Amino acid sequence: MTTYAVLGTGAVGTTLATRLLELGHDVVVGTRDPDGTAQRPGWPGALPLATFAEAASAGEVVIHASSGATALSVVEAAAPGLAGKVLVDVANPLDFSAGFPPTLTVKDTDSLAEQIQRAVPAARVVKTLNTMTATVMAHPERLGEPTSVFVSGDDPEAKAGVTALLQELGHEDVIDLGDLSTARGTEMFLALWVRAMGALGTAEFNVRVVR
Amino acid sequence: MTTYAVLGTGAVGTTLATRLLELGHDVVVGTRDPDGTAQRPGWPGALPLATFAEAASAGEVVIHASSGATALSVVEAAAPGLAGKVLVDVANPLDFSAGFPPTLTVKDTDSLAEQIQRAVPAARVVKTLNTMTATVMAHPERLGEPTSVFVSGDDPEAKAGVTALLQELGHEDVIDLGDLSTARGTEMFLALWVRAMGALGTAEFNVRVVR
Repeated sequence: MTTYAVLGTGAVGTTLATRLLELGHDVVVGTRDPDGTAQRPGWPGALPLATFAEAASAGEVVIHASSGATALSVVEAAAPGLAGKVLVDVANPLDFSAGFPPTLTVKDTDSLAEQIQRAVPAARVVKTLNTMTATVMAHPERLGEPTSVFVSGDDPEAKAGVTALLQELGHEDVIDLGDLSTARGTEMFLALWVRAMGALGTAEFNVRVVR
Repeated sequence: MTTYAVLGTGAVGTTLATRLLELGHDVVVGTRDPDGTAQRPGWPGALPLATFAEAASAGEVVIHASSGATALSVVEAAAPGLAGKVLVDVANPLDFSAGFPPTLTVKDTDSLAEQIQRAVPAARVVKTLNTMTATVMAHPERLGEPTSVFVSGDDPEAKAGVTALLQELGHEDVIDLGDLSTARGTEMFLALWVRAMGALGTAEFNVRVVR
């Protein structure tokens, strides 16, 4: 049993936080304005709220689940609680300013994951789960056959812990791509993911790496 | 039975040309210097050679299988034979000038496929097969279970023809992503592909889109 801090209150944050609670873990959700979020219509009452910094301090493992646009301000707000901790980044640097499909704000020679690592150098950033929609992150068994998930990070121990978490979520095929710069690959995959979503008419899909 | 022109004499071109011959089609391989290519050690003698323009003129369907770096000069050389024809582009805009992993010379707001279409506006460009290595393009059954291949293009009739070719090659799951700009997605996938190749220790893999 682990205490997880989940930073972000959108679909990804609430889906992951709810799933971690169901698995028996302690969870605290970080948000800019806990009172405001608690009063939001439909907010799941089972999810305890705190500020980003309070949540990060309480968590043994911290999951960044806000959007790409807010990522750096969120992790900077959480920074006092992040030293030495595993920071799981599941976000993508999507830019919707020109409509759909989005472009990427950073790519090819840098990544959001690396930007986050530079913003909070004392954290141990692991990129994962960003190649699928929230319901598949939390319930991969919904797809009916095993699919693949990638991990990228500079700290082997942190990646091993995240791999165990992914397996607990039901991900049977965890592929370690290497250091954190390999997150450029999974973030750039979003350009294909958004177009496949359009073609398939659903976000509930994932890739299986067949080899 | 179709006459295919394959532009490019590297691993992708020779593998696809050889497979099309085995399937009973007529094939002509386009190269800058047919005599020089014919004298290359190990050149498969069964593959007839011609200049890019001669090959394109002879082909009912033309496959661009040179590298991203040479793509535009190759299709411009072939342009006299391309008017009205389906031009299947299987290349990727990889830039190895800074070593491995490569970056992309064009991405996110444009693609190699769109550059090719602009270079030869009279051709009907269809992007496909660029998400896998040559042996998997030609022999997807080697992977032991069905995997997915994507098509992108502005001409529905051209895409239908290419889809039939893909099925003839053994590709059971052909996903039509939409217009040619969706090739941005499959080309950017290469950033993940090259890193997965490194992690898996083999280029003989492909993704299956599970939905």
